[in-house]
Amino acid sequence: MDTTLDISYDVFAKACPSRNTLEHVTGRWGGLTLCALHEGSLRFNELRRRVDGVSEKMLSQTLQALERDGLVHREAQPTNPPRVDYELTPLGRGVAERLVGLIAFVEGRMDDVLAARQHYDETRGTR
Amino acid sequence: MDTTLDISYDVFAKACPSRNTLEHVTGRWGGLTLCALHEGSLRFNELRRRVDGVSEKMLSQTLQALERDGLVHREAQPTNPPRVDYELTPLGRGVAERLVGLIAFVEGRMDDVLAARQHYDETRGTR
Repeated sequence: MDTTLDISYDVFAKACPSRNTLEHVTGRWGGLTLCALHEGSLRFNELRRRVDGVSEKMLSQTLQALERDGLVHREAQPTNPPRVDYELTPLGRGVAERLVGLIAFVEGRMDDVLAARQHYDETRGTR
Repeated sequence: MDTTLDISYDVFAKACPSRNTLEHVTGRWGGLTLCALHEGSLRFNELRRRVDGVSEKMLSQTLQALERDGLVHREAQPTNPPRVDYELTPLGRGVAERLVGLIAFVEGRMDDVLAARQHYDETRGTR
């Protein structure tokens, strides 16, 4: 009988909740949203302009998932019309810093990526 | 007339090719595949076992996108039956290192994430 309790998380395991959170963090819009907020707190429409191409519905769902995971804080001001600001929590900042590092690396190496694509497309028929 | 040539890449811009590469790298299976290969070269079926839940078709498409972007090297041995190994390129290693750091951070903070979710689910009806 296995009496040990494994309290560690492993994204490689299909059922581990960390995989789900990783998907919120690295999903199509989650990563860009976190990185946009890494630059400072933003209102919904500011975020929508920053994350070029996101729909209102997708941004809303993305923010809700990030807020639920404790990565984004939503601050509603009791003004008329109501003003809602979004900002990173300390936990979200930790995630965003690592994402920003990843994105900066990818952006900085895109010349190599595009050269690799061209090479692949020119030679794939011959292998 | 604008005669400047902007050669930088920006994932926030919808049409920038870096966004596409970022999606390969952080997509549902791309990230896990790169991190699995960060531990060493693997054959297709070894990868499939490591990346719990991926289908043969999805792993195949994922590897093809990563290979095309110059992140993964595919080495086919002329044996019978043919043996195919996948390994990271130096560029892929740079990406994988940053992903591994991000994943380790998320895995290490999952207790906080799950506590935040519970709090969110208990209080969201009241705001």
